Amino acid sequence: MPENSHTGDPTTTGIYPDRQRRLRISLSNAGFRGVALNPGPTLTYLTGLHFHLMERPVLFIVPVDGDPVLVLPELELAKTTSLSFSAKILPYGEQPSTWPQVFQEAALAAHMADQYGVEPTRMRYLELHILQAASPTTRFLSAEESLAQLRMFKDPGEVDCMRKAVLIAQQALVSTLPFIRHGITERELAAELTLQLLRHGSDAEMPFTPIVAAGPNSANPHASPTDRQLAPGDLLVIDWGAGYQGYISDLTRTFALGKVEPELERIVALVEAANAAGRAAAKPGQTASAVDQAAREVIEKGGYGQYFTHRTGHGIGMEGHEPPYIRGDNEQLLKPGMTFTIEPGIYLTGRNGSRIEDDMLITEDGSQSLSDLPRQLHQLDL
Amino acid sequence: MPENSHTGDPTTTGIYPDRQRRLRISLSNAGFRGVALNPGPTLTYLTGLHFHLMERPVLFIVPVDGDPVLVLPELELAKTTSLSFSAKILPYGEQPSTWPQVFQEAALAAHMADQYGVEPTRMRYLELHILQAASPTTRFLSAEESLAQLRMFKDPGEVDCMRKAVLIAQQALVSTLPFIRHGITERELAAELTLQLLRHGSDAEMPFTPIVAAGPNSANPHASPTDRQLAPGDLLVIDWGAGYQGYISDLTRTFALGKVEPELERIVALVEAANAAGRAAAKPGQTASAVDQAAREVIEKGGYGQYFTHRTGHGIGMEGHEPPYIRGDNEQLLKPGMTFTIEPGIYLTGRNGSRIEDDMLITEDGSQSLSDLPRQLHQLDL
Repeated sequence: MPENSHTGDPTTTGIYPDRQRRLRISLSNAGFRGVALNPGPTLTYLTGLHFHLMERPVLFIVPVDGDPVLVLPELELAKTTSLSFSAKILPYGEQPSTWPQVFQEAALAAHMADQYGVEPTRMRYLELHILQAASPTTRFLSAEESLAQLRMFKDPGEVDCMRKAVLIAQQALVSTLPFIRHGITERELAAELTLQLLRHGSDAEMPFTPIVAAGPNSANPHASPTDRQLAPGDLLVIDWGAGYQGYISDLTRTFALGKVEPELERIVALVEAANAAGRAAAKPGQTASAVDQAAREVIEKGGYGQYFTHRTGHGIGMEGHEPPYIRGDNEQLLKPGMTFTIEPGIYLTGRNGSRIEDDMLITEDGSQSLSDLPRQLHQLDL
Repeated sequence: MPENSHTGDPTTTGIYPDRQRRLRISLSNAGFRGVALNPGPTLTYLTGLHFHLMERPVLFIVPVDGDPVLVLPELELAKTTSLSFSAKILPYGEQPSTWPQVFQEAALAAHMADQYGVEPTRMRYLELHILQAASPTTRFLSAEESLAQLRMFKDPGEVDCMRKAVLIAQQALVSTLPFIRHGITERELAAELTLQLLRHGSDAEMPFTPIVAAGPNSANPHASPTDRQLAPGDLLVIDWGAGYQGYISDLTRTFALGKVEPELERIVALVEAANAAGRAAAKPGQTASAVDQAAREVIEKGGYGQYFTHRTGHGIGMEGHEPPYIRGDNEQLLKPGMTFTIEPGIYLTGRNGSRIEDDMLITEDGSQSLSDLPRQLHQLDL
């Protein structure tokens, strides 16, 4: 994230202190005394810091009152020299036997008591266990809602990064299509696409490994690229994305390799229509479930409802999957600044499948697809 | 991992049932009734399955008695069609409201009671919380030791994969060196190295993003590549690795960009000598701490002890960091089949740094470096 220009004390104004302030309000309203975070997108969103979480504990703790606390290995200390907010830094050395002591200091400094929040998909047993021992009477509960509220609304700087991530992904795919030929394997094509993503400017840390799945593998929504060679008659599903300054894109297109069976053409056309219906339904004041329903209805009416086996989409931003989830049971109202995928699919297990995915932004008066690569079935001659 | 050839019932013989059997014995000896695992290398080691862990819970549960239990989203079901062991599969649909019910079934099927193990660096609050509610009287405790014992000893097939991962990494670096020129940024060079890793056959999912750090950034042991341009007089530290069939390599070399200050030549020579001393000390019956001490002593005697700010190495295999840790307080005895890095470094904060890292295998009568790229300071003319 580009740092906003600001004047005044950099430890109390600017993007990260602002975000921490919003978090404190949200936590306080939910009855939490603070939140303890493991490294991940939320920690980066609040601090600008990146950590690779491995066998050493790392925690960023934001109490509702007072400065945040950062517990980290000494060898990561260099990352804290240019912090743009004030924080209590508690480094520890190479001996795991020192962890309980430093966690106790952290618990004390962060006024740990009553109810303290954690991020359920990030907080690990490793840190939670030491933290619980350091502050036995504190109850650690999911702060999922407070954290989601924070990151769900993208500011213009964040949307710019997402647009760039979409652009990089689209350019990379266009540069990869000429490599598609009879006999190339899914794995080889995925490697080529990865090269092109990096060449076109993706962050070195890419959001996910591209899915390149043809024939029967295309009927698996979470396929991994295999050594199977592409062959005429296959549908080819490519699900890929780029990262740009920590923000990601996530797109899917389906191609026909040579002439495919009429039924396969029909399912791709249905998926394309479902994608269009989902995009059209996305606007402020609409529920996530209504968007899911709009896309699903097209496929159900086409007679393939049972083969659309997943939700219509998921939020996207610093993570590949984040709120809002575009799911039949999610009555969340869509609001300007929310970003999510629309990605209906039809999967004929053992045969072929199709998915078409775009990245959407809810605007003041409707929505916009950040992605604009053609969606209709394009036949590639092998 | 290539599946071992075997005859007989594929659900009771073969590599995965064997590993699960060894795990059961180890758990039982430690007083556990079973273990509940989140996706990660240990789950893959035991099952051959890969999952991307995101907002949906996934658990693989191995009770000491009876079949393992796999809880997963319906849309991942296709991955279980070719399981080489018998297991109870409990899929769930898109509604999070169904999670508690399926976790209760899992707890029942896996005889959850008394003490049940978890993997501290993998188990998330998300799954742990639902599991605890599903089986309120079960105590979930770290099974770190039992799990480490399992994966710490590599079989010949695993070592072959690691050798291949080292070979790919070395070839990729050799192919990248010609791109080093005055003005190229750390980030550009890291992208080129990533391309070369994929071209030379690295798994698409690479173990970590290469560190390419020159000048002041080389003095940060956990640096990320920046937009700073390489310039004469810098030390250049490259820390990179490849993946091969899920096994990884992790190497570091230090280069001089043009002529560097005499003190920088001296620290690189000290680091090289420390690396050699660490490698020489690695053999069966030696402790991890003695290997750390052998490397550290060289740097201390050279007068730079305070600038070697981390342990000498870490285990390596399916993970970048795993036991055995080569650390001053680790009295673990080294044994044949163990694999770990030797990576001493000297970091002159704000100036330059150096690290030289190899991947070692403990053999029956000594040890072997899987990596053999020259270690002495090589001057690249910009």
